[in-house]
Amino acid sequence: MAQQPSKGLADVVAAATALSDIDGRLGRLSYRGYDINQLAGAATFEEIAYLLQRGAPPSSTELAAYHAVITAGRALGALVSADLPRVAHRQEPMEALRTLVSLASAEDPDKDSNAADANLRKAARLVAQQPVLVGAYEAARNGRAVPEPDPRLGLAGNFLFQVTGRRPGERSARILDACLVLHADHTMNASTFAARVCAATLSDMHSAVVAALGTLKGPLHGGANEQVMRTLEEIAKSAQDDPVEAAGAEAATRLGRGEKIMGFGHRVYKVEDPRATHLRGMAAELARAAGDDTYYRMSRRIEETVLAEKGLYPNVDFFAATVYHYLGIPTDLFTPVFSVARMAGWTAHVIEQHADNRLIRPDSEYIGAADRTWTPLAAR
Amino acid sequence: MAQQPSKGLADVVAAATALSDIDGRLGRLSYRGYDINQLAGAATFEEIAYLLQRGAPPSSTELAAYHAVITAGRALGALVSADLPRVAHRQEPMEALRTLVSLASAEDPDKDSNAADANLRKAARLVAQQPVLVGAYEAARNGRAVPEPDPRLGLAGNFLFQVTGRRPGERSARILDACLVLHADHTMNASTFAARVCAATLSDMHSAVVAALGTLKGPLHGGANEQVMRTLEEIAKSAQDDPVEAAGAEAATRLGRGEKIMGFGHRVYKVEDPRATHLRGMAAELARAAGDDTYYRMSRRIEETVLAEKGLYPNVDFFAATVYHYLGIPTDLFTPVFSVARMAGWTAHVIEQHADNRLIRPDSEYIGAADRTWTPLAAR
Repeated sequence: MAQQPSKGLADVVAAATALSDIDGRLGRLSYRGYDINQLAGAATFEEIAYLLQRGAPPSSTELAAYHAVITAGRALGALVSADLPRVAHRQEPMEALRTLVSLASAEDPDKDSNAADANLRKAARLVAQQPVLVGAYEAARNGRAVPEPDPRLGLAGNFLFQVTGRRPGERSARILDACLVLHADHTMNASTFAARVCAATLSDMHSAVVAALGTLKGPLHGGANEQVMRTLEEIAKSAQDDPVEAAGAEAATRLGRGEKIMGFGHRVYKVEDPRATHLRGMAAELARAAGDDTYYRMSRRIEETVLAEKGLYPNVDFFAATVYHYLGIPTDLFTPVFSVARMAGWTAHVIEQHADNRLIRPDSEYIGAADRTWTPLAAR
Repeated sequence: MAQQPSKGLADVVAAATALSDIDGRLGRLSYRGYDINQLAGAATFEEIAYLLQRGAPPSSTELAAYHAVITAGRALGALVSADLPRVAHRQEPMEALRTLVSLASAEDPDKDSNAADANLRKAARLVAQQPVLVGAYEAARNGRAVPEPDPRLGLAGNFLFQVTGRRPGERSARILDACLVLHADHTMNASTFAARVCAATLSDMHSAVVAALGTLKGPLHGGANEQVMRTLEEIAKSAQDDPVEAAGAEAATRLGRGEKIMGFGHRVYKVEDPRATHLRGMAAELARAAGDDTYYRMSRRIEETVLAEKGLYPNVDFFAATVYHYLGIPTDLFTPVFSVARMAGWTAHVIEQHADNRLIRPDSEYIGAADRTWTPLAAR
């Protein structure tokens, strides 16, 4: 028999996974059994993508082979390249990425296979392609050429290079790398769940990832980091006096009106999201290096206000916003940065779903009218 | 606390809906409280799309206004038109539709709004656009022009006209219309559920529908009707003698090997799917009219075999295959036909989700290794 409805499926176990685990009461997140506190700053994003997709950390030889696939996977096919300028001028970033990844399947030699080896190859290529799509999109809409990747830079460094058009400093590249590691997977979040629902019909990895991209786009999911930055920008712009004071006052006013502040609270974490702890530290470091810590101090004041008034902790989106800002990434590309990282998790979840599949087809509760009699149009 | 995992969410109520209801034990399906047995052949697909999207059947005036939106919505924008030939030559039908609908959002004037009135306008336009995309795709890959829609034909008739390039007879148009009505909605099927997971992040209707298209593509969902036809074609081609005898023998052989026969059984229906009853009748009628009822008789023999051996009834996909075949629709467009119909349900579910939203974010059960210690690459 059907159970009582659980709106939003909160606390309903939808899948078993060996990819990531959250302890919401202790504020712990682990990938394949490794606490992210061990990984952030110590492992590269490429190592983590490999770990998630294949189950164990790569040896030096395996990592070199994976890097070779990433390097080869940076070449955009003819179909995507031909469309990119037009799409970049007509579609917003997440809308464009949804289109471009959907187009890209045409040129993937494994597109028709869900076999384990084909899925592993597609997964590596999708991880390689996503930062290049974001960089090429940003270059195209600004009418500049996208820089050729620099073999001395890893995925994160080249991503920052292609997005900003400027060769990043070593510390900036490492901070973005750690950000990607922190965002790589997060159990049954909405976009990952959408990918698994799609893959469970035995549809292909590109379809699943396209579904995930459209889902991440929403302001209650990946769109939140952009909203955080827009709020900071608006407050700074309209502040009569000290923007830090204005930030605290604005947060208090919004909470007083019963509004939500983007970037706080999480369905799973009851204490501080461990990713927020790392991102706060990175934001502080980048603010110091930038010589202007206004946005950082504004963020801290908002954080203090929300904690005092509502007992809510910042989530992954809150300090990610200031970090990306200080790294020189345009605000409307914050959600695309999230997609570059989460591509590792999405692809790994599709691999896992296909390896032990069952159609995901829930029930619904009918709450509408019953037993109505249809009247033909002529008699209505 | 988290419940025990329910693989595939079978029997888990994921949402409340006033759109459709299934009684799996009685074999009943209703839309907004109207049993589909009242609707099939009596209501047009446009009336049903309106009913699903807006809650009540249209008056003559309301239907005329809806038809006007459908007519206007047939015009493909410049971005989609420019890409269509290239996409049609490089992507398979469902892959192409996923791309083209994602592209089309660029030209929707309401794309940035999830407001109720904007969603209603987008929903009507998406219903109008889908058959034209399928028709234009088929014309483009065959290097012919797509016929201008005929104002005397409804959505189904024009769809058949544009797909086949031949003006359909009245009876063919009416049968396809009834097929679209029968496929318009079906509670929390996988593609609809994917659309709701996407929309529940407050992402937009186009993203949700793109997620649904990628999900419908899977052979365990919309892809099944094409698989049914491919099986019939293979058996007919390799039959030494009577293809009807060969069909029964092949079904028995496959069942004996423990294989599944596509088009049979359903997670929700325990008796015959009421849609199958209607589709069987249509297949019989079209077979008689065609003067060659081989595929129909093969289908009946397979049906008898599967019922006798496994006690399974045909589902919506089984006789839809022969119906579409007799209507002259190419086999690889069967799933796209499904998408033309289900667009009515998907869009209505997005409207319903946005009207009373909560993020859909389930839990997962972690089944991997725990408490592993990360070894830096140099030490691995």
